[in-house]
Amino acid sequence: MSKPKIQSGFAREWELSPIGRRLLKEGRQFASVRRIVVAARKVFAQRGLSGARMDQIARVAGVNKALPYYYFRNKEELHRFVLETMIAQVCVAMESPSVLSMQPSERIYALINSTFDFVINNPAYPRLIQREMMSDRRRLHWMVVSYHRPLHRRVAATIREGIALGQFRRVDPDQTVFTIFGMIQHYFATGPLASQIWKRDIWLPKNVAERRKAVLDFIKHGLFQPEARPTIRRT
Amino acid sequence: MSKPKIQSGFAREWELSPIGRRLLKEGRQFASVRRIVVAARKVFAQRGLSGARMDQIARVAGVNKALPYYYFRNKEELHRFVLETMIAQVCVAMESPSVLSMQPSERIYALINSTFDFVINNPAYPRLIQREMMSDRRRLHWMVVSYHRPLHRRVAATIREGIALGQFRRVDPDQTVFTIFGMIQHYFATGPLASQIWKRDIWLPKNVAERRKAVLDFIKHGLFQPEARPTIRRT
Repeated sequence: MSKPKIQSGFAREWELSPIGRRLLKEGRQFASVRRIVVAARKVFAQRGLSGARMDQIARVAGVNKALPYYYFRNKEELHRFVLETMIAQVCVAMESPSVLSMQPSERIYALINSTFDFVINNPAYPRLIQREMMSDRRRLHWMVVSYHRPLHRRVAATIREGIALGQFRRVDPDQTVFTIFGMIQHYFATGPLASQIWKRDIWLPKNVAERRKAVLDFIKHGLFQPEARPTIRRT
Repeated sequence: MSKPKIQSGFAREWELSPIGRRLLKEGRQFASVRRIVVAARKVFAQRGLSGARMDQIARVAGVNKALPYYYFRNKEELHRFVLETMIAQVCVAMESPSVLSMQPSERIYALINSTFDFVINNPAYPRLIQREMMSDRRRLHWMVVSYHRPLHRRVAATIREGIALGQFRRVDPDQTVFTIFGMIQHYFATGPLASQIWKRDIWLPKNVAERRKAVLDFIKHGLFQPEARPTIRRT
């Protein structure tokens, strides 16, 4: 990937987070900041917020150990930045005008496809977000208010709309949101386990493609009315 | 609950783990050991293996801080004991003669119902096991070999058998095992999050009952052939 492309990708992500906007305003879009963020994703995914150490993040990033503090003040701010730039991207995908103009049935497929696409490009994300999801209520508050609850409500509303239009069975919309995310999130968050149980690398592109197909197929039969079942395809 | 009942329950669980068998052999079935185990479940679920401290477990248990070391040697052994006595119970449920003699369709319902029953009685379990599932491959090895892989294969074989008998759709059996566990495990492991998103306590018995109903309904349509769909009931 060429350097300008990486930069513009990062700038787009950073715009999604208050901390990122501060960094951009301060002109902090340097190679060393990017290396810190990439290293932090790995280390936090592996060890969680309490287990990760800023020293280790600096070492993995190959930067002076004072630098992560210089850009991000403390470990909590770096952790929040890493999480927020990722979860915001997942949420943004569901708010695009092209998705909002779709039929509910198409919108559910778009949700699943965009989540898979995001996970493929950000394999640390499922474990990062899972660790955070299991933390205590107080720590979760900002993420719930800004991201999880709006996303949940948007997907639940889509399901409700699909039921009203006769596209979906009369499922419980809220329960079904948790079911859909559980089928994707659990599988990738426990990737090392699934790979060992199954003696195959679940992250190989052909295996991710099989998982996507299996999830879409299960949703098609679990959620759709028989006459409304679409042909499975990637959007 | 009366004291003898708790004791016999513990003895039955302890028999499932090599560490537990050693404790029973040494005559360690005392109130203080039980208090340490109950405290350890809570602390490990909340903080994970690396974040938990033996001092804290002793404090929550209300015992002298040397006692957890006296019975369990070190934190890793206590952690393994806690996990093993739980996961072994989940696996044992699928191996009982009454379950093995069932039709595949009934066996899948029994799996889901017994997992829900276990989770209701052991609310720390989903987070405990989730943290372990996200740890590195080396640490996972004993659990995969002794529990996860045999359980996975048993459920996959049940699905394969159900397909052959025309009870289930022609799904991918392995993918479907991950889907079923994901629908249950993800929901309860991220309980604090789900409760906050939804502004309801997901652990209330009526809410657990609704989740169970939703999962069974989704499996019924996602997995079963229309003509083989059973009426949903608790076994």
